[in-house]
Amino acid sequence: MTEIEGGITAPYGFKASGVHCGIKKNNLDLALIFSEFPALAAGMFTTNKVKAAPVVVSQKKIRQGWARSIVANSGNANACTGKKGIENAVKMCEIAANQLGISSQEVLVASTGVIGEQLPMEKVEEGIKMAVRSLSLQGSHIAAKAIITTDKKIKEIAVETDISGQGKKKVKIGGIAKGSGMISPNLATMLCFITTDACITPDALNQALQRAVNKSFNQISVDGDMSTNDTVIILANGKAGNKRIKTWRKKPTLRVKDENFEIFCENLDYLCIKLAKSIVKDGEGVTKMFEVKVEGAPFPDDARRIARKVASSNLVKTAIAGASPNWGRIMAALGSAHTRIKPEKVDILIEDMLVVEKGQSAQASLQNLREKLLKDEVRIIIRLNQGSCQTTFWGCDLTEKYVKINKRYV
Amino acid sequence: MTEIEGGITAPYGFKASGVHCGIKKNNLDLALIFSEFPALAAGMFTTNKVKAAPVVVSQKKIRQGWARSIVANSGNANACTGKKGIENAVKMCEIAANQLGISSQEVLVASTGVIGEQLPMEKVEEGIKMAVRSLSLQGSHIAAKAIITTDKKIKEIAVETDISGQGKKKVKIGGIAKGSGMISPNLATMLCFITTDACITPDALNQALQRAVNKSFNQISVDGDMSTNDTVIILANGKAGNKRIKTWRKKPTLRVKDENFEIFCENLDYLCIKLAKSIVKDGEGVTKMFEVKVEGAPFPDDARRIARKVASSNLVKTAIAGASPNWGRIMAALGSAHTRIKPEKVDILIEDMLVVEKGQSAQASLQNLREKLLKDEVRIIIRLNQGSCQTTFWGCDLTEKYVKINKRYV
Repeated sequence: MTEIEGGITAPYGFKASGVHCGIKKNNLDLALIFSEFPALAAGMFTTNKVKAAPVVVSQKKIRQGWARSIVANSGNANACTGKKGIENAVKMCEIAANQLGISSQEVLVASTGVIGEQLPMEKVEEGIKMAVRSLSLQGSHIAAKAIITTDKKIKEIAVETDISGQGKKKVKIGGIAKGSGMISPNLATMLCFITTDACITPDALNQALQRAVNKSFNQISVDGDMSTNDTVIILANGKAGNKRIKTWRKKPTLRVKDENFEIFCENLDYLCIKLAKSIVKDGEGVTKMFEVKVEGAPFPDDARRIARKVASSNLVKTAIAGASPNWGRIMAALGSAHTRIKPEKVDILIEDMLVVEKGQSAQASLQNLREKLLKDEVRIIIRLNQGSCQTTFWGCDLTEKYVKINKRYV
Repeated sequence: MTEIEGGITAPYGFKASGVHCGIKKNNLDLALIFSEFPALAAGMFTTNKVKAAPVVVSQKKIRQGWARSIVANSGNANACTGKKGIENAVKMCEIAANQLGISSQEVLVASTGVIGEQLPMEKVEEGIKMAVRSLSLQGSHIAAKAIITTDKKIKEIAVETDISGQGKKKVKIGGIAKGSGMISPNLATMLCFITTDACITPDALNQALQRAVNKSFNQISVDGDMSTNDTVIILANGKAGNKRIKTWRKKPTLRVKDENFEIFCENLDYLCIKLAKSIVKDGEGVTKMFEVKVEGAPFPDDARRIARKVASSNLVKTAIAGASPNWGRIMAALGSAHTRIKPEKVDILIEDMLVVEKGQSAQASLQNLREKLLKDEVRIIIRLNQGSCQTTFWGCDLTEKYVKINKRYV
């Protein structure tokens, strides 16, 4: 696997664009992604009961298993907007489809921004038309720019790997994402769009995406709040030539049972984890990221619950912010996750320094520990010693700046 | 019901004291409560898997249903301290029992403070001896002072009510508590000790305490972190004369089926809710408290989950801190609680102003709303309109000061 340039337009046959249409005052606010060829699609969406209109619309469409375009706006979440919101989300797909000369069934939609306001549809319509006109094979970067809101950095990546088995044809995967941290002054929304030219079965595509999301975007927390708009979509147009197909209906090469499937998954995992970590690092007010690795859990769920609880604890997060070697907070947080673990068996390492042994102080030098905690990225390992399941989760510190940003008036 | 002076020493036959023995540098750090007569006892404890030694010891003892003394220290949580921690907790009871001339089975123990350090037992022993010597019928206030750590205010209350049915004998209930917000630099620990001279059956005492705690201490959140040391204990010595008994074994007047039981419960609820709210108000860095009332839930659990989620959301908490009329955050938080509610039926009122109607913006004036949000106490009502269950929860804002306090080095 090699990291390459080009983001979502690195895979063969994908174009993208980003424009400013006036949803936001000054910045780019509308992105379009388009595969010149029919493509399979898979997606994962927020589990919040309050789902934004574009989530409802895209989630329903994606069940058919194919789509070749995504239209996404920032600055307005189109959430809590009732029937009119749904109509507007559908309309966004129709406008894009008309302009692209494809069926509106082939267009997915996503939004991020303020909750509770209707989209300015005239502006959006103009924007989509502009976006179609400016589609480009180098459009990934500007599309990535158009979906961010308060993100400080653009999140874009592409990888290339040989999964043909013959070393001749390389498969590419590209991704862009927008961050969490608070969006507009409203919500932590996470959007991620992935493209690939891999020739893959619908089943394999779905499985690969689920695996990757469960290892990446489902394993991060900025403030523990769940958005109404979270969306991850992957489009696969099969044009890499790992086995050429003419339509998406033909049986392609990459099936779940193939050896090559694992290679594809590893690539997708890598891409998603990298984007997910960049979201955490770029969270509002974040100065430090930390990794919580839980090992030796009796069940996978125990590991996940404990990792999430520790990484989401305001006390742990403020301790990380202040480089405070306060392992008692980690113990208290892991004990409050709903599991059946025995605390008296737990070891904790912070930056490879043993701080808790069998549930008690390992008498580590707090001064040394404090120095280690001054790093930008801190690694916490929790050894439960009660089984063989493990997981990794990424969290960020909680700072005065986070509070300041999110206190402000809408 | 009347509020009266005297706290935990208001009920007949209770003495208390508070001393400084050196666990903390300067402040009072050891409290003792003692009933001159045998008493029933009931208690509720943290559900954290990581339980402090005094929790383990008291939880086991209280199953017998009686106790007449509580020894409590602040400044050291005696948590994550292994076997030696348990031995020290047991020893604290024994020292107190020896000095008081009672069985050590009749003494309960509680601690709050730093995690992971052993208690300085010589100092503690001296402290307990001093505390026994200084027991007094006016000792409630000093005992309340000895259990607090970073609390700014002392939490003490007593109520009196006629539950004799003849208007002659009044029953008194007194309580002291220590706050949440972060304790020492470690944990949000909540301790509450209640005394009453009511003559009540063990079953009725247990039920009354459970009801009251579920309506009060289980319905507050400062930072969503759960302590290893949370403890609520009630002692009832039956000396009010609502029906005199000579030993705790005799069948007393107040049974669960009695009409008077409801009156007793209402009094206890009032006392616990008032102490619970004072804990929230006094949380570290807190400038504003808010009440989340959830109505019209299909099941009690749905109401509780939603209320807790909204009150614990960092986004809602920062919005309250900044008086930001950001109802989108409330919608997103309630949707992310694990329930089956339909968001399109939800109405939300902030300070009696309708801001969300049927899941959408009620077009309220955000400027008016902002003015209402400037108050010290804000009331949010969430009408699910999907059933008849309801609950009330109390939360506090999240401020820069909270972060600052909790970032600091141990």
